[in-house]
Amino acid sequence: MALALSLGRRGQGTCWPNPAVGCVIVRDGRIVGRGWTQPGGRPHGETQALAQAGEAARGATAYVSLEPCAHHGKTPPCAEALIAAGVARVVCAVEDSDPRVAGQGIAMLRDAGVEVTTGVLRDQAARDHAGFFMKTEQGRPLVTLKLASSFDGRIATATGQSKWITGPQARRVVHAMRARHDAVLVGGGTARADDPSLTVRDIGVEHQPVRVVVSRYLDLPLMGQLARTAKDSPVWLCHGPGADVERARAWEGLGARLIPCAVHGVQIDTTDLLQQLGNAGLTRVFCEGGSALAASLLADDLVDELVGFSAGIAIGAEGLPAIGVLGLSRLEEAPRFELVETRAVGPDILHRWARPLR
Amino acid sequence: MALALSLGRRGQGTCWPNPAVGCVIVRDGRIVGRGWTQPGGRPHGETQALAQAGEAARGATAYVSLEPCAHHGKTPPCAEALIAAGVARVVCAVEDSDPRVAGQGIAMLRDAGVEVTTGVLRDQAARDHAGFFMKTEQGRPLVTLKLASSFDGRIATATGQSKWITGPQARRVVHAMRARHDAVLVGGGTARADDPSLTVRDIGVEHQPVRVVVSRYLDLPLMGQLARTAKDSPVWLCHGPGADVERARAWEGLGARLIPCAVHGVQIDTTDLLQQLGNAGLTRVFCEGGSALAASLLADDLVDELVGFSAGIAIGAEGLPAIGVLGLSRLEEAPRFELVETRAVGPDILHRWARPLR
Repeated sequence: MALALSLGRRGQGTCWPNPAVGCVIVRDGRIVGRGWTQPGGRPHGETQALAQAGEAARGATAYVSLEPCAHHGKTPPCAEALIAAGVARVVCAVEDSDPRVAGQGIAMLRDAGVEVTTGVLRDQAARDHAGFFMKTEQGRPLVTLKLASSFDGRIATATGQSKWITGPQARRVVHAMRARHDAVLVGGGTARADDPSLTVRDIGVEHQPVRVVVSRYLDLPLMGQLARTAKDSPVWLCHGPGADVERARAWEGLGARLIPCAVHGVQIDTTDLLQQLGNAGLTRVFCEGGSALAASLLADDLVDELVGFSAGIAIGAEGLPAIGVLGLSRLEEAPRFELVETRAVGPDILHRWARPLR
Repeated sequence: MALALSLGRRGQGTCWPNPAVGCVIVRDGRIVGRGWTQPGGRPHGETQALAQAGEAARGATAYVSLEPCAHHGKTPPCAEALIAAGVARVVCAVEDSDPRVAGQGIAMLRDAGVEVTTGVLRDQAARDHAGFFMKTEQGRPLVTLKLASSFDGRIATATGQSKWITGPQARRVVHAMRARHDAVLVGGGTARADDPSLTVRDIGVEHQPVRVVVSRYLDLPLMGQLARTAKDSPVWLCHGPGADVERARAWEGLGARLIPCAVHGVQIDTTDLLQQLGNAGLTRVFCEGGSALAASLLADDLVDELVGFSAGIAIGAEGLPAIGVLGLSRLEEAPRFELVETRAVGPDILHRWARPLR
């Protein structure tokens, strides 16, 4: 099952809106098939593994990182495929929370006389599929908020200089993290100040996440990196009702997708923003700031994982803060996360935190 | 030698202005004496170990974490004592940089026919004695700057609430760190806002470091924890020329020691502050903020070790920053430190950084 989970994670970032599922088929103690959900979400992991196993699947055990699907979507249900292949036993890590599946995959298998075990490595599987479950249950993607800052929590000097606070090793880890998410999300201020490309580079990965920029008025440079590359890999712009029509047309002409969102106060409403991104199919979003967007997401309790890269430099109070104004009146109201890990990454440290379990 | 170094560290924080030296005497593969510099700086580690070894020291090997002293101070030189005891061989980790010793201890031993080896575990020994060497060479103590902050580098909310950002485990580690320094140092703002006692508590240590508060005008509460306990363990107040005379007298009456310092701009000059503390005998100072004092020390390049405790909470940009205004114009000017370690401490993380080697 650990192998099935590991294979499943290979699909993270590439198979949305579908879950990234891994499958291992074992017969007589030998692995006869391995598969994971392919880019675009099809074929599913089970289909891949069954194809590899062929006749050897008969009487075998299939380890699947998520309950096999039971509904006819664009592909026939995987539960049916496992039955047809003559699999004797299915071990799955966790039940699917998609109402079209939700136990029906398991029921279909059992009705056909297949022995089913569930809950093996369930916690790890629940973490792996957290984005898919979040979208199914709450309609929004999982949000990882990444902030790379100085020892004192600054993401740039007073004059806006931010290249580079953290080292090349940390930036490589960031590219790997981007690759495992469906989309990278930044605020308009960051897009204007840094002119980022937000692509995955230098780590041997070809798949590119969607690049999402939140900009109420679409006041983004039409000559920057995002504009220049919008035809090569997706750029989605989330804007408010008052956005300039000419600019909207120009961006569409460059290949960007425009997503209208509600406004709350002076900013895009982050709750609506994430619902829109969920509707568009995203399950895992990697937000890289800036401080205003980070503060909005935190204030609306929409951050599921917090990733910090901290460098051993001090920038001082006049530097740009990693997180904008939260408006707390008491310390007890501060958003609180649980430590997942901390480790050195080159000259910097990485620290990961997760939303506490409810 | 590793044991001698470890024994030596037991004296850290208690034996200033003397170095914290450890000594192990071995004869025929058996440890016959162990010692470390005692509180107040005497007896020295060698004296202790020789006393324990007695006649067994004859023909033995002495492992010492620092070159034995060669000068007559308040005690006769340890080099002489080792010779008199008939020690055949002395292995020392690092030479003393005190001009009264500086190789003379080794020379004295060799002249007496004792075999001497130096440089064993020199790097670790240099770290252990860094405070003593700093005082000998630059006249100032080693400075460890500790800051406990939120994920986003805030030490309190906008309303000043700081209890508790980090957990009880982190606070225990802070008490252990205090105990290994000669003094704890804070700015006047912190003393006013938090009314700290700055003592070592709850870890089974009786020795208390000196408590040093920097306050230009001595506008500190005469009814607070420091005032109340100044008779029990030392309180030193570093003030500027314009400090109120009445207040100075009141503090002296409470048992505090007053140390006049030069002023630079609107604040106490931190370079002069540390020279005064060095003159007073301190070798290792543990600074716990606040943000103005932290910024002054960093801006004047006086921080040797940086210790961060970070909690998984977000306070936001309106919170009190860990480090005040540094006045950097370019990122390249930012004070930069090298990572020593990062690890979990209860729900928080500890990250230690050191001044890069020149």
